Amino acid sequence: MKVTPSLPKGTRDFGPSELRKRNYIFGIIKKVFEKYGFQPLETPVMENLTTLEGKYGEEGDKLLFRILNSGDFLKEVRSQNTEISEENLKRITSMIAEKGLRYDLTIPFARYVVQHQHEITFPFKRYQIQPVWRADRPQKGRYREFYQCDADVIGSDSLICEAELLLITAEVFSKLGLNEFGIKVNHRKILEGAAEYLKVANRFSEFVTVLDKLDKIGSDKVIEEYRQRGFNQDQVDLITKWILKKIPSEENEKMKKGAEDLTKVLNIVKLNHPNLDTSNVLDTNLGRGLDYYTGSIFEVKDQSSVKIGSIAAGGRYDNLTGVFGLPGVSGVGISFGVERIYDVMEELKLFDNINLSANTTRALFINFGGDAETKSFQYLQQLRANDILAEIYPSAEKMKKQIGYADKKGIPYAIFVGEGELKNETLQVKNLKSGEQKAYKLEEVIELLRK
Amino acid sequence: MKVTPSLPKGTRDFGPSELRKRNYIFGIIKKVFEKYGFQPLETPVMENLTTLEGKYGEEGDKLLFRILNSGDFLKEVRSQNTEISEENLKRITSMIAEKGLRYDLTIPFARYVVQHQHEITFPFKRYQIQPVWRADRPQKGRYREFYQCDADVIGSDSLICEAELLLITAEVFSKLGLNEFGIKVNHRKILEGAAEYLKVANRFSEFVTVLDKLDKIGSDKVIEEYRQRGFNQDQVDLITKWILKKIPSEENEKMKKGAEDLTKVLNIVKLNHPNLDTSNVLDTNLGRGLDYYTGSIFEVKDQSSVKIGSIAAGGRYDNLTGVFGLPGVSGVGISFGVERIYDVMEELKLFDNINLSANTTRALFINFGGDAETKSFQYLQQLRANDILAEIYPSAEKMKKQIGYADKKGIPYAIFVGEGELKNETLQVKNLKSGEQKAYKLEEVIELLRK
Repeated sequence: MKVTPSLPKGTRDFGPSELRKRNYIFGIIKKVFEKYGFQPLETPVMENLTTLEGKYGEEGDKLLFRILNSGDFLKEVRSQNTEISEENLKRITSMIAEKGLRYDLTIPFARYVVQHQHEITFPFKRYQIQPVWRADRPQKGRYREFYQCDADVIGSDSLICEAELLLITAEVFSKLGLNEFGIKVNHRKILEGAAEYLKVANRFSEFVTVLDKLDKIGSDKVIEEYRQRGFNQDQVDLITKWILKKIPSEENEKMKKGAEDLTKVLNIVKLNHPNLDTSNVLDTNLGRGLDYYTGSIFEVKDQSSVKIGSIAAGGRYDNLTGVFGLPGVSGVGISFGVERIYDVMEELKLFDNINLSANTTRALFINFGGDAETKSFQYLQQLRANDILAEIYPSAEKMKKQIGYADKKGIPYAIFVGEGELKNETLQVKNLKSGEQKAYKLEEVIELLRK
Repeated sequence: MKVTPSLPKGTRDFGPSELRKRNYIFGIIKKVFEKYGFQPLETPVMENLTTLEGKYGEEGDKLLFRILNSGDFLKEVRSQNTEISEENLKRITSMIAEKGLRYDLTIPFARYVVQHQHEITFPFKRYQIQPVWRADRPQKGRYREFYQCDADVIGSDSLICEAELLLITAEVFSKLGLNEFGIKVNHRKILEGAAEYLKVANRFSEFVTVLDKLDKIGSDKVIEEYRQRGFNQDQVDLITKWILKKIPSEENEKMKKGAEDLTKVLNIVKLNHPNLDTSNVLDTNLGRGLDYYTGSIFEVKDQSSVKIGSIAAGGRYDNLTGVFGLPGVSGVGISFGVERIYDVMEELKLFDNINLSANTTRALFINFGGDAETKSFQYLQQLRANDILAEIYPSAEKMKKQIGYADKKGIPYAIFVGEGELKNETLQVKNLKSGEQKAYKLEEVIELLRK
């Protein structure tokens, strides 16, 4: 059976050169997370659907990838004589699939914390860098399999945690060379207070969801949407004033509490990172759609010429583990959008300035077969014994082919051990970029390639 | 809705301490792979079922995890009026699921090579360290989600490749401190020649499959199984002689060719790794069940007191990419059994001698609140600016609680900035192991913690 090979839509292979760049980004983020005391965690790709369902809204449930039960998965459908109709789709789904692919890293983390609550020392600072899956319609920059890169502190309501996450953000982007970014912060309490003041407290979630679209669709369309959703003239007028920032953000107690928290957070950041401009970061229109946020919320946007949008975001949640039976544990987290960060860095050609060749072959022995091959291989093993990354072309092909292999793989040196070299125990080393070539003793080659 | 959280059976969370040990193993293997010129590759978790099915035998097909199609997955079942019966299970499966979780790393690699054949420079040396999924019955040491760790060279039939894989194996296990292992090699051509000589050539695959059980069930049971499978007395007598190694391994041309190859491979290894005992590694009973092997095959067994069995294995295949439309490309690969390697190292307490704390917090600032907190945080950021991994307890809890946090997290130093220290600009540093405590200037603390 011959099959033309392809990949499921929305998924990608990562070959060596792309992977090196991705791993560079992951490496930087990981290092900063660890510097701030976060520890690694990995959870399985599969979770029980009871863990995942109902956590991401109705839309999220639709986007879950579900795994067919093993064996005779139709047994229950048959025994219950379930009609195979569109109306029964949900019921049948629950009969034939009990596991799904994780949709984000936050719910599996909450599940982990509850399951291991008696072994964990709180506050628990964990980071997690793993792929997630969503059955979204794939489009440019949106995949069905993509990585998330999260750090969370759970079990502390100290505002130091928020400040540290903002400092982490600044350090990560500075280390990546992404210096044009803008931080925005807001507080759920400001939004709750505003909802009361704007007389829309009974429709809080809707108020925030629509507000969150401001950046994408603009104020006119947002106001239009409130109208369409049946908010009355009085409410729409007030919301309009809010959007235009004509209402102070400390009009009632709730708003004051939220603003106070943010001021404390920003003061810590300012004191410890004077170069980071925090003067204009409060954006009272920032919503962050996710229902579980209860305190500070923040978002980081790329402000380079690429203008790709949000590249990191997070916030505080007071009851994430409640749904799994552990109420009253406050946490705060940040998530880096690695796929977008990659795209921005690629477009700004930032990888050009980074040495990604640390893990790539330094020298290729050209294979002349026979005794030369035997000797070359012995030299090669000496280089490797000195932790130098090196190879021999596995067979005595034409020189052009062997050199072509080195070129395409970006190997900087070729080494020749021919008849002459066999006699006087030397190695000819050619710098493939400059063309320079010279005979060396083995120890000298080791010295040269170590650099 | 309160749900008691749990994991799908056969899957595991990896918390910080376990993950550090696992990453240590992955790190060593990765480094050796790269030293030998292998480049990283990652493929998606999901593959099309057309890629996976029929590649792992009937049993393998049963063990694939299949992903339910999104949306109205029952549409085709309804429109074709398919009866929901056990007999139709396979047909219905193919109607409602077109993707599956990868079962190993070899088939996705073959798929990748064919799909990218025009961009790849051959010989292509790639390594891949990713999880795979099998709906096996979980038991001690056998999981449904587990990591594979593969290196393959594709596009070269040079025996240097085999030799390099054996040298890699020796280096990996030596670096891990696993010095008690035994290498076994055999050659498919020896087995093919033997099958002819033993008059079982027409049942080659069966001959090898049963032979492969020798280690597990012993020669009596193996011979009995041949009998039960209907091999005749003449065949069984010859097979018995073969098993007992009373037939030389070079009785015909095929066997000679296989033996010759192995001799060349072992000579390269011997010349370059005199400490590796290769005198007794040929085991003509080694089968390696996988159908795609065509040349050398090898297996590495743990020979420590743990006796966990095979910890690495591999071989040469001449037509892995043929099924995807690219025939005649020879390759050879090795796979490390990381889960088992972990278990052996744990049982032999080998991790005790390894410094796994490189990525863990060096010092915890005890939080006294107020001005002390503010100053401590500033000191902390100075340490971090010097790439020292450090933390502050996020709130001014009781001393005992804060020290307890440091203890449980294995943080070696606690730092106190109290009223006295605020005045004279010093920091009290306490070694939590020895109990020793002393006042330092900031620069001295940086010096101390850098070590």
